[in-house]
Amino acid sequence: MRRNIYVDNLPLEEARQRWQIALEENGCIRAREELIPVDQALGRITARAVYAPNSAPFYNSAAMDGIAVDFRDTIGASEARPRLLEAGRFTPVNTGNALPEGCNAVIMIEDVHALSDGAVEIIAPAPPWQHVRTIGEDIVISELLLPENHVVRPIDLGALLATGVAEIMIKIPPAVAVIPTGSEIVQPGEQLKPGNIIEFNSRILAGYLSQWGAQAHRQEIVRDDPELLRRKLEAVTTNPAFDLVVINAGASAGSRDFTAQVLAQLGTVVVHGVNIKPGKPVILAIVNNKPVIGLPGYPVSAVLTLRLFGKALVDQWLGRDGDEEPAVTALMSRPLPSKLGTIDFVRVKLGQVGEKLIATPTGHGAGAVMTLVQADGILTVPAASEGIAAGAEVQIDLLRTLKEIANTLVFIGSHDNILDVIANLLHRRRPLTRLSSSHVGSMGGIMAIKRGEAHLAGSHLLDEASGEYNVPFIKKILADVPLKLVNLAWREQGLLVPKGNPKGISGFADLKRDDISFINRQRGAGTRILTDLHLNKLGIAPEEVTGYHREEYTHMTVASAVAGGNADTGLAIMAAARALDLDFIPVARERYDLIIPTAHAADPKVEAVLELIADNREFRDTVTGLGGYDLTDCGKLIYEQW
Amino acid sequence: MRRNIYVDNLPLEEARQRWQIALEENGCIRAREELIPVDQALGRITARAVYAPNSAPFYNSAAMDGIAVDFRDTIGASEARPRLLEAGRFTPVNTGNALPEGCNAVIMIEDVHALSDGAVEIIAPAPPWQHVRTIGEDIVISELLLPENHVVRPIDLGALLATGVAEIMIKIPPAVAVIPTGSEIVQPGEQLKPGNIIEFNSRILAGYLSQWGAQAHRQEIVRDDPELLRRKLEAVTTNPAFDLVVINAGASAGSRDFTAQVLAQLGTVVVHGVNIKPGKPVILAIVNNKPVIGLPGYPVSAVLTLRLFGKALVDQWLGRDGDEEPAVTALMSRPLPSKLGTIDFVRVKLGQVGEKLIATPTGHGAGAVMTLVQADGILTVPAASEGIAAGAEVQIDLLRTLKEIANTLVFIGSHDNILDVIANLLHRRRPLTRLSSSHVGSMGGIMAIKRGEAHLAGSHLLDEASGEYNVPFIKKILADVPLKLVNLAWREQGLLVPKGNPKGISGFADLKRDDISFINRQRGAGTRILTDLHLNKLGIAPEEVTGYHREEYTHMTVASAVAGGNADTGLAIMAAARALDLDFIPVARERYDLIIPTAHAADPKVEAVLELIADNREFRDTVTGLGGYDLTDCGKLIYEQW
Repeated sequence: MRRNIYVDNLPLEEARQRWQIALEENGCIRAREELIPVDQALGRITARAVYAPNSAPFYNSAAMDGIAVDFRDTIGASEARPRLLEAGRFTPVNTGNALPEGCNAVIMIEDVHALSDGAVEIIAPAPPWQHVRTIGEDIVISELLLPENHVVRPIDLGALLATGVAEIMIKIPPAVAVIPTGSEIVQPGEQLKPGNIIEFNSRILAGYLSQWGAQAHRQEIVRDDPELLRRKLEAVTTNPAFDLVVINAGASAGSRDFTAQVLAQLGTVVVHGVNIKPGKPVILAIVNNKPVIGLPGYPVSAVLTLRLFGKALVDQWLGRDGDEEPAVTALMSRPLPSKLGTIDFVRVKLGQVGEKLIATPTGHGAGAVMTLVQADGILTVPAASEGIAAGAEVQIDLLRTLKEIANTLVFIGSHDNILDVIANLLHRRRPLTRLSSSHVGSMGGIMAIKRGEAHLAGSHLLDEASGEYNVPFIKKILADVPLKLVNLAWREQGLLVPKGNPKGISGFADLKRDDISFINRQRGAGTRILTDLHLNKLGIAPEEVTGYHREEYTHMTVASAVAGGNADTGLAIMAAARALDLDFIPVARERYDLIIPTAHAADPKVEAVLELIADNREFRDTVTGLGGYDLTDCGKLIYEQW
Repeated sequence: MRRNIYVDNLPLEEARQRWQIALEENGCIRAREELIPVDQALGRITARAVYAPNSAPFYNSAAMDGIAVDFRDTIGASEARPRLLEAGRFTPVNTGNALPEGCNAVIMIEDVHALSDGAVEIIAPAPPWQHVRTIGEDIVISELLLPENHVVRPIDLGALLATGVAEIMIKIPPAVAVIPTGSEIVQPGEQLKPGNIIEFNSRILAGYLSQWGAQAHRQEIVRDDPELLRRKLEAVTTNPAFDLVVINAGASAGSRDFTAQVLAQLGTVVVHGVNIKPGKPVILAIVNNKPVIGLPGYPVSAVLTLRLFGKALVDQWLGRDGDEEPAVTALMSRPLPSKLGTIDFVRVKLGQVGEKLIATPTGHGAGAVMTLVQADGILTVPAASEGIAAGAEVQIDLLRTLKEIANTLVFIGSHDNILDVIANLLHRRRPLTRLSSSHVGSMGGIMAIKRGEAHLAGSHLLDEASGEYNVPFIKKILADVPLKLVNLAWREQGLLVPKGNPKGISGFADLKRDDISFINRQRGAGTRILTDLHLNKLGIAPEEVTGYHREEYTHMTVASAVAGGNADTGLAIMAAARALDLDFIPVARERYDLIIPTAHAADPKVEAVLELIADNREFRDTVTGLGGYDLTDCGKLIYEQW
């Protein structure tokens, strides 16, 4: 196994500087411009200042419907002594008409009394230039219409055309060749087999590049073969149709990671390896005077490193400072450890709950596309930091607008499939409202409410002593929080097993068996507590259960582990079994409630959820169709405390 | 002159309600959807929720380069007692490879010691599923990927493709026919004669419609002829290619305003005339079940009424709440009168000066495109209000992003052509920085500094007693404001006359002549004060000067009035004469300075201006090219007070 072990670990700032110097030394930023018709200029960036070649209006014109006159003919007119203007001494004009030669005022039609012989009477004098739009009233010839580096807006088209500008110089966006590599990569739609990865990275990267103003050209997939890679890179870097190259991946130190080595043969590798996570193995190179960015293969790493190095390059090319959303200050909801010496880019969800903007780290896998789909922002943890304390103020770079975040309903707590149904119907009815749900278990939800970090929480905690759900825990932990407890559903929990139950599992007692591997839920999950109750009742110790310590965070990931053969069984709701076509061994019927602090009960977003679950036909039909739900009490107030 | 006098004056809210009811009763919002490949989905809006049809990954895969093993083969391995794995008991894997059948853990290559016979040694046990990305680790089958009404982002493409989604249902944007009307309207590039208006409104309107997500189709110009108009409206409303119609203009009560009358023949005019300004004569009609919006002809009125009624319609069609920038709270810089009973939409400039966000009304002409180009936001003055006091808190709907506004340098004061040069070079060097200049005269600038409403002011006030510029006024009016006074230029002021000086003007003494009309500057302008000084010296009273009371706000509009024959002469700087090819009769050489409060001197935007004027070659060459400037003292500190 031949490997390219060496990947550098340059400080980010130094990497940026080396890259910038190399770009400048090699004249890599070759901003180009072209003359285009104004009709095609919307959204383009001006390459030159545009000055008005003519005034607007370019003639004196009537600003009202009425008659155009010479003001001297109107002097002395009054109600008592109207003045007569014979035909020929005035000209009827509509708004916008040019003033006839010799006219220098307009009298509104309402103030004109037409006589039968074609003459008119007026009852007030017209000051010079009354109701006249004079030459240049809007725009004076030679005035600056648009500065250089301006993104052309609809209204700008008006100013350009009104003064007779027909064409403007705009910046030509950089053309970027985006090359996906990898023998395991297949195009969407191709037949898949295990080990295949659908080629989606180039689509994501091309999407961002176009949003930033570049022209992205996705290339065919290049197999893991240094010779093929060399030919492709030679071709795109010598092709005048491309200004920049983005290659993904082959940047790591694996046995098939040839990118750096091939780039070094063809040109100069300026940087290979930066002290960032994710994205460490990023390559910055220059080949045939063209910048080449080699991105790591994992989608999250690829996106973040493209944002770091690609966006800056496109901005520079187009002469923009960057127009991303500004950073916001938020409070960390939980402690975040970080490795000293590495800059961590942490995906976070943000929630505006009351006065506080709360940041919660979401998943951290570099391969986890969905965590980036759900993330609201990126927290940068400096290399010198060993972590961030809960409650600390942090700066977050936004991935959504502040308005979207202000309209995000923050749910924290136990996972249930109904949450997806709510998320979708809510977004349909109130497109700006978004449900952001974090699945940290029932106890996690209660603690989030205690800390004031969620608009609502979901819980199904059974108090063994009283046999009651949720209320005993609320009284104990949330005693001083005014709140309402509203039922969402009764639901069936049970052991999930593959179709046909091949190992003949009939209940928790079977978990002791040597041939059975279990998949558990995380600590604090109501379902974990339910498991412990049952094991306890049967006198089974955790150590006796193979897989007891393997934890998943949702019903669906448990179901997925069973469906994929990674475990023989796990405890989850019936809806999860149904969704993945698994068999279901009922264990308990339990009550799942929403905890709503009174402070947020009148929040329109929360009200929308309560309305939805109370009486929406589609909601009820969809949930019933998921299986295992009883909506008898859905929407009912179970408990309230002041 | 046949006229359509009657235009209604409906309260805006009632107009909106009538329109909404009519749209619903006629089933006018016919949202349609279509299935498109994910590769074309960027920026489109989902018409249906998308759930994951497969898990991602859909197989267990290596999360590290190394060897895949059955964890049971590794139990008990340690540094002291390494375990030997013979060839066949392990499989070399790269990150992303599928785990072979029977394998359930990966050992990192760094922890594997290869032996010569193809076997390997390991020194630690591998827990089950170590370094394995298990099925569904990223996305679990059936999980909600994107809700309905979601604008597809680049990262979303990844989540869709990764789970095997190849096509999604998206909303078809409404197709809008945009019809320009008017016999005076000509296409850009056509030969112009007085009375012609270049057809730019349809370009502005189509631009906004596309930015809001609609498909705009500009139509040919329709002449002012009811029959032609009827045929065109009949054609577009019966053409299935169009969902909405926007017609501009013919909405008023002029003799050529047929739009309402033709619409009433073809369908139902729901609203004609709303209590808003500008935009009162707007028409909302339904013809052949299609919404038709008749916009007033003036560009500003057209844009504002399209925002009011067209954007809401497009948003409804696409199922969006609207994603414009949120309103901001600002302080009025000056009192704003408003007519009772009419909702006023007032264009304002915004300036973040220190802690305060200041709103200043800009021009109010409905035909003034440039005021809308320069506006940062719209202030809505309710019908019940007679005006707004200076210093009052107002809500402003933004036309630019808050970030742009935060990066806007606020200049208030005397007009000079150099300001355009600064604006452009500043925007080139710092694309996010914008110079917003309000020309209210030297005294207006000093007062703005006093009120803390400008980052810098421009002034050329001559104190007759001392013969000194600016400093005496600063000492008197700005005594308690720490500031620096920096020279911008010495410049030539003079009387502007048409080329060849047809009326033989030689100085201010000629202004008494009956055959000479003058154009003056506004009160508070340094140039006005200069005029008064000269008239005073010559013993000429204002009443003796024809046109003394006609006021313009800039050197360029004075020049424009002279060039257009609206006045015979006016006082302005030489650069204005040069720009419009006028003759120039020198009157004075004066010092034009920048007043910079010390509080803003370290603002990077202000620093950028000072750097620019201090040593930029292009700045100096350009200014010198304008004519009449002496840059000897440019950038020099003239005076400072603490």
